[in-house]
Amino acid sequence: MTNKLNLKLISTPGLSSDRLEYGVAVRLAESEVSKILKAAPLPIRRQMQHLAQATGKGIRAQALLACSMESDGLVGCQAINAAASIELLHLATLIHDDIIDNADMRRGIDALHVKFGEKTAVLCGDYLFCFAFELASTLVLQEMSKGETAGVLPSYFTAICLGEIREFNNIGNFALTENEYLRIISGKTAALFQASFHIGFLLSDEPPENEDIYVEIGRQLGMVFQLADDCLDYISSEKKAKKPVLSDCRCGVITLPLIYALQVDKSLRGKMLNGISEKEIKSAVLATGGIEYTQSKIREFRAEAKKLISSLENKKKRIRLEILLDKAATVVVSL
Amino acid sequence: MTNKLNLKLISTPGLSSDRLEYGVAVRLAESEVSKILKAAPLPIRRQMQHLAQATGKGIRAQALLACSMESDGLVGCQAINAAASIELLHLATLIHDDIIDNADMRRGIDALHVKFGEKTAVLCGDYLFCFAFELASTLVLQEMSKGETAGVLPSYFTAICLGEIREFNNIGNFALTENEYLRIISGKTAALFQASFHIGFLLSDEPPENEDIYVEIGRQLGMVFQLADDCLDYISSEKKAKKPVLSDCRCGVITLPLIYALQVDKSLRGKMLNGISEKEIKSAVLATGGIEYTQSKIREFRAEAKKLISSLENKKKRIRLEILLDKAATVVVSL
Repeated sequence: MTNKLNLKLISTPGLSSDRLEYGVAVRLAESEVSKILKAAPLPIRRQMQHLAQATGKGIRAQALLACSMESDGLVGCQAINAAASIELLHLATLIHDDIIDNADMRRGIDALHVKFGEKTAVLCGDYLFCFAFELASTLVLQEMSKGETAGVLPSYFTAICLGEIREFNNIGNFALTENEYLRIISGKTAALFQASFHIGFLLSDEPPENEDIYVEIGRQLGMVFQLADDCLDYISSEKKAKKPVLSDCRCGVITLPLIYALQVDKSLRGKMLNGISEKEIKSAVLATGGIEYTQSKIREFRAEAKKLISSLENKKKRIRLEILLDKAATVVVSL
Repeated sequence: MTNKLNLKLISTPGLSSDRLEYGVAVRLAESEVSKILKAAPLPIRRQMQHLAQATGKGIRAQALLACSMESDGLVGCQAINAAASIELLHLATLIHDDIIDNADMRRGIDALHVKFGEKTAVLCGDYLFCFAFELASTLVLQEMSKGETAGVLPSYFTAICLGEIREFNNIGNFALTENEYLRIISGKTAALFQASFHIGFLLSDEPPENEDIYVEIGRQLGMVFQLADDCLDYISSEKKAKKPVLSDCRCGVITLPLIYALQVDKSLRGKMLNGISEKEIKSAVLATGGIEYTQSKIREFRAEAKKLISSLENKKKRIRLEILLDKAATVVVSL
């Protein structure tokens, strides 16, 4: 691991061997993402600066940082670069997603392809993706027995791509089953949470035998997050969600609330094929209990995650992970 | 490096510790690419099988394999996976390129976005990209002192993306200078050859101090390859090139033959702004000596590469690399 690229990290200012409080690490990771975007190479700087205006809630970065926490509750400096890398990878997938989904807004501002065109957006996504992988490849693990982080990311990313492709292939498929849907989102969304948890674990002082527990908590939390987001699309206002609502059904993306509604109300499929308004679809989802059903699923995944979190020894870490789990399930909490 | 993913490689059938003749390794790498594409996960299989119909000349794989050759002229088995990975990464960039360039054909068959739509093509490119990175991350180096391969790839890929973005930003820019153009192609094309040479070197038994020589030969060979391809666009027939000819100028991509023609024939820029046919542009490029000028540049890069190759100790390797250099410059040879 005397890889040339690693030397970069060691010489990066601010990344000494000091360890930090969790809250400080979260703020540093946020500002690292923003700094990287604002200082992008010239040919791409305008686009990256546009993205820097709205950098998201950073729940994946927080998950990684919380998992990397050591027994004394502090976070190693390398985790900041790792967390920034995860957020940039997430951003890269969002850019391509918005092209695929014809989404106009993202995080309260114009989607990149709306402002700069689809072709530029494809290239910007590719660039961010490579840059984030490059950043991740600079990580040096203290405990080599756990393996190395750079090799961990790609397999989660093939899972994410397959999830995206499965989602796209099922646009307008009113016969999509709950199981097929859960498979889609376990790739599309949960795999990135798994990656965050996995890398956080690899950077921590947790014993190697805890690896699978971390990856599994990541999966459960990711499922909670996506299902809560699915509900949000039906019940939130545009202002609150900072992105278009009812966009899933408008784009033909079938999510769990609608899958349930289609099962309960057998006339709905025919109505949708003949063309009904988004408002009417929303009413059907609400009337059939699609939201409540999805919330019951969220509770199941959440209970699983809670159980696994409670098995961890580090109390400070347990508290952080439970807060994140609550955040992921915000919709259920706020109802 | 006890990375979980590495275990995969060790257990892959056919990838024992045996070493192979170069020619056998080339054929195995080719068939590995084809096998991977044909056995792609179901949601993406049709698209990957379409790509498997025409898998290219494999010059980047051959470069990697030649560089990985050991003192006895044999190639280690791991180099086959590395070579397949490089070809898949190349394929991923081609898929996105063809979207950006509105190219209809690739390697004699329909471009992926023409057959399956732009959105699917974006996702297929992303998938192949991640898959190739995953494959590369399974490589285990014998000599750890040289560093590790997985971390080497991403930095070349940010360079490739930046080259693509620079090219796209300069579409229709008749004021593009030769230096700016060489900078574009040193990213867009040469960086992937550098990556092939670099990884081949890392897998070989060459001494660590030869690292820079390999990366530099890769760069020169990449420049030769792109400039020869630029000439091909003006002087080849569609049948011979297996892709549309005169496509660069049709898409507003300014390459060296045209940059030179615009410098020599001062009236050309005005004519192009007013709109002249591709045939007329071709005539101007030929009349001003744009092809000969580009060929003189090819000769310069080629001479540099030859000098560096001749400094290598391994005779069998020198011969292979010279053959590849000749291949890269095919256009000059055939004129």
